[in-house]
Amino acid sequence: MSAAVESSEESRLQRLQDILASGAIREASTLMRSLAPAEIAHLLESLPPAEREIIWNLVDEEHDGEILLLVTDEVSASLIRHMDAEELLAATENLDLDDLADLVQQMPSAITAEVLDALDDQRRKRLEAVLSYSEDTAGGLMNTDTVTVRPEVTLDVVLRYLRRLGEAVPSSTDKLFVVNRDDGYLGILQLSQLVTRDPQETVAEAMSLNMQPIPADMSTTEVARRFEAHDILSAPVVDIEGRLLGRITVDDVIDVIREEGEHQFMGRAGLSEEEDMFAPVLSSTRRRALWLGINLATAFLASWVIGQFEETLSKVVALAVLMPIVASMGGIAGSQTLTLAIRGIALGQLSAKNARALVLKELAVGTLNSLIWAAVVAVIAGVWFNSIEIAWLIAAAISINLLFAALTGSLLPLLLERVGIDPALAGSVLLTTVTDVVGFLSFLGLATLFLL
Amino acid sequence: MSAAVESSEESRLQRLQDILASGAIREASTLMRSLAPAEIAHLLESLPPAEREIIWNLVDEEHDGEILLLVTDEVSASLIRHMDAEELLAATENLDLDDLADLVQQMPSAITAEVLDALDDQRRKRLEAVLSYSEDTAGGLMNTDTVTVRPEVTLDVVLRYLRRLGEAVPSSTDKLFVVNRDDGYLGILQLSQLVTRDPQETVAEAMSLNMQPIPADMSTTEVARRFEAHDILSAPVVDIEGRLLGRITVDDVIDVIREEGEHQFMGRAGLSEEEDMFAPVLSSTRRRALWLGINLATAFLASWVIGQFEETLSKVVALAVLMPIVASMGGIAGSQTLTLAIRGIALGQLSAKNARALVLKELAVGTLNSLIWAAVVAVIAGVWFNSIEIAWLIAAAISINLLFAALTGSLLPLLLERVGIDPALAGSVLLTTVTDVVGFLSFLGLATLFLL
Repeated sequence: MSAAVESSEESRLQRLQDILASGAIREASTLMRSLAPAEIAHLLESLPPAEREIIWNLVDEEHDGEILLLVTDEVSASLIRHMDAEELLAATENLDLDDLADLVQQMPSAITAEVLDALDDQRRKRLEAVLSYSEDTAGGLMNTDTVTVRPEVTLDVVLRYLRRLGEAVPSSTDKLFVVNRDDGYLGILQLSQLVTRDPQETVAEAMSLNMQPIPADMSTTEVARRFEAHDILSAPVVDIEGRLLGRITVDDVIDVIREEGEHQFMGRAGLSEEEDMFAPVLSSTRRRALWLGINLATAFLASWVIGQFEETLSKVVALAVLMPIVASMGGIAGSQTLTLAIRGIALGQLSAKNARALVLKELAVGTLNSLIWAAVVAVIAGVWFNSIEIAWLIAAAISINLLFAALTGSLLPLLLERVGIDPALAGSVLLTTVTDVVGFLSFLGLATLFLL
Repeated sequence: MSAAVESSEESRLQRLQDILASGAIREASTLMRSLAPAEIAHLLESLPPAEREIIWNLVDEEHDGEILLLVTDEVSASLIRHMDAEELLAATENLDLDDLADLVQQMPSAITAEVLDALDDQRRKRLEAVLSYSEDTAGGLMNTDTVTVRPEVTLDVVLRYLRRLGEAVPSSTDKLFVVNRDDGYLGILQLSQLVTRDPQETVAEAMSLNMQPIPADMSTTEVARRFEAHDILSAPVVDIEGRLLGRITVDDVIDVIREEGEHQFMGRAGLSEEEDMFAPVLSSTRRRALWLGINLATAFLASWVIGQFEETLSKVVALAVLMPIVASMGGIAGSQTLTLAIRGIALGQLSAKNARALVLKELAVGTLNSLIWAAVVAVIAGVWFNSIEIAWLIAAAISINLLFAALTGSLLPLLLERVGIDPALAGSVLLTTVTDVVGFLSFLGLATLFLL
C-alpha cells in the first residue's frame, strides 16, 4: 500500500511537468492543489524560469510565505521580484516568528516597514527582538513560540493548562520550559515525562536540569554541533542574564547542517550554497566571470613561470609535453590534503593545537606516494623519450611538488581561517596556484640546470 | 551564566589536550569523567593515533558502545582493532537496536555470533530483522522501540498505560503509533495531542492520518528528504503489507544529511566521508595512491595529446607557455557547471526531464563568458608575444573549451548517474580529462593548421 502512495507522489510531480510542457494550465492547477508546500518548493527549484513563473502564479496565496521560505534565497528573490506589495504583505501572514523574520529580511525595505506596522504590539516587539540578532546566531534561528511553566505547580495543573491552550500548543512541542517569575530559565519538562510521571508530582520534581540553555549569540554552527551531539529536538535560547528568549527546533538545525555541507561543496567551485540551478543567464555569467577571472590571474602566473624557461623549452620539447603531469599530480595530492583539512576545521577538529600532527602525517603520506609515483612516471617518461635524464628530472620534480602539496594543503586552510578568509572558498584556488608554480618551476628549473 | 558554562565546555577539551601533552594521565582521567560521550567522540576524532589510544583506554567501559557509534567508521574500526572479545561484547550492552545493528556490522564476524547468542529471543529476532535491511534503506536506519496503541481505547487509558510503562518510554518519543490487531499501521497520536485533547476521546478521534508510513526499502536519501520537507521528528516504518516494523527518529536523519554533504565534498577529492584525519600513514597512502594513479592516467592522456604536436611546439615555444591557460579555464568553468549538476541530482531536482534547460542555460553562460575571457586572454597573450595570430588562436581555443566544459559539466553527471557510477566521485576526474584534452587539442591543433 505505502509503496503505491510513494510512487504516486513521485508521479504527481512528473505528471505536472508533462502537463506544463503541453500547456494545459487548468489541469496543472488541479494537480497543484494535491501537493504539499514543500513539494511545490522542490518543484519550483527544478523548473526553468518560464515554467517557474507559471507554477508560482498557480500557487494558493495562503502558501506563498511558506514556499518562499522553503526555496533557496536566490529562487525566492527571483519570485519576490515579481510580486506586488499587496501579495508580499499577504505572504507574511500566518507565519511563525522565526520564519517571518527570515522572510522580511529578503523583502524590499518599504515592505518590511509595512509588515511591522500591520503587526500587533507584542508580535512586533518579538519580531524586532529576533531581527536584532544576526542570521547566523542562535538568536536569529530561534522562534518565540515557547510554552513555559512554573516549577511549583503540579503536573496535573500543567496538563489542564495545556488542554486549555489546545491548538495553541505548537505541534512540534516535545518539551516545556520551566522558568521563574522573571522568565529566568530553570530547566525542561519533557512531554514524555509529563505523561509518564504521577500527576501529583510538581514540575520541580519531574523536570530535567541536564539541558544547558543556548546563549542567543552562539553561532549556528555551534548550535548544530550541540543538537547533533546530544540528539536534541528543541532547546531553550537565553539572553546574557539567563532569561528565556525562545527555542530552537531541530528542523531549523537541519537546514543549518544542509547549508554547511552545500557551502563546502559549492564553495570549492566558487559558487554559493544559495545558487539557483536556473538563475538568469546574465547574473550567472557575472558571478561565474568573477571566479574565472581570479583563476585566470593564477593561470597567467603559472604561464609566466613557464615563460621564464622559453629557451630551455625550445631546446627540449619533451619538457613541454611532460610538464602538465608534474603540475597535475601536485594539484590532485594537494586537494586531498586540503579537503581533509577544510572538513577538520568545519567540524572544529583541526586547530593550531593538532596541526603539527596533521602536517607530519600528510608529509609522510606525500613522501611515500612520491616514491611510488615518481618511479612510475620516471619509467614511462624515460621510455617514451628514451632519456634517463628526463626520467630523473621528472621524478625529482614530482617528489618536490607532492611535498609542497602536502604542506600547503594542510597549513593553508588554517592560515586562511586565522586571517578570516573562508578556506572553503579560497583554499582550492590558492592551492592550485602553489602546485602549478612549484610544479613548473621545479621541473623546468631542474631541467635548465642539468640538461642544458 | 550560560556563556560561562559554554566556555568551560570548550576549555575542558582544551585543557584535556594540554594535560595529555604533559603526560599527566591521572588528571586526564578525572577530566574525562566530566565529558559527555559525544564530546569524547569528538575529541577522539581530533587526536593523532598515539593520544587517541591513551584517551580511549581512559573511557568508562559503559560508554564504549555509544562512542564507537559516534566516531566515523574509520576511527571506530581502528579502536575496535585494539579491543578484545570481552571488551567488544561489553560495548554492545545497553544499546538501542538500531545502534546495536550498526555496531555489530563493524565487528569481526566471530564477535557478531557471540553477540547474537547473548541476546534474548525477542531482541535477537528484532536485531536479525534490522540486519536484513541494507544500511542505506529505511529498514537499516530504523529502531524498533515504538510505543503502539489501539484506535478504540480512550486517551485516558493511553495516559495510564504510559504511566505504567514509565521509564520504558524512550525520551525521544514525540508520538505514539496507532496499529490494528495485526500490527497494521493506521496513524499517529502526537504526544502534544494526547496532552491537549479531552481524555474521554478515543485514539481514533485524536489521531492524525496525515503521516504516510515509510516503506522499509525506501532509500535513506529519500527518507531524509521527506523528514526535511515535512519537519518530521519521528516516522513509522512499515513492511510491504503495511505492518509497523519500527520508527526512524530525526537524529538518525541528521547523520544521513551530514554524511550526504560530506560524501559530495570529500568524494570530489577521491576521499570517503568516513576518512579519518589521522588515519595510519600506510593505509592513507594506499587509498590516496589509487586516486593519484587514476589521475595520472588522465594526465598522461593529456600529455600524449600534447606529444602529437611536438613539431609545432618546437617551432613556436609561446604555445607551450600559453597552453596551460586554455586547459585551466576550461577546467574551472566546467567544474562550476559540474558542481551545480551534482547538487541538482543529489537533491532530486535534475533529471533527464529538465536536463535540456540546464544544458541550454549553461551553454549560454559559457558563450557569454567565453566572449569576455577569450578577449581578455587574447589581448594579454597578443601583447606578451607580440603576435595577432597567437591572440586569435588562443581566443578560439578558449571559446571552444568553455563550450565543451558547459556541455560536459551538465551532461556528464546525468550520464554517470544513469550507468550507476557515482558522479560525486568520478565526475571531476572525467571532466578534467575532457577539458585538458579539448583544451590542448584545440589550441595546438588550430596552431598547427594556421601557424605553420
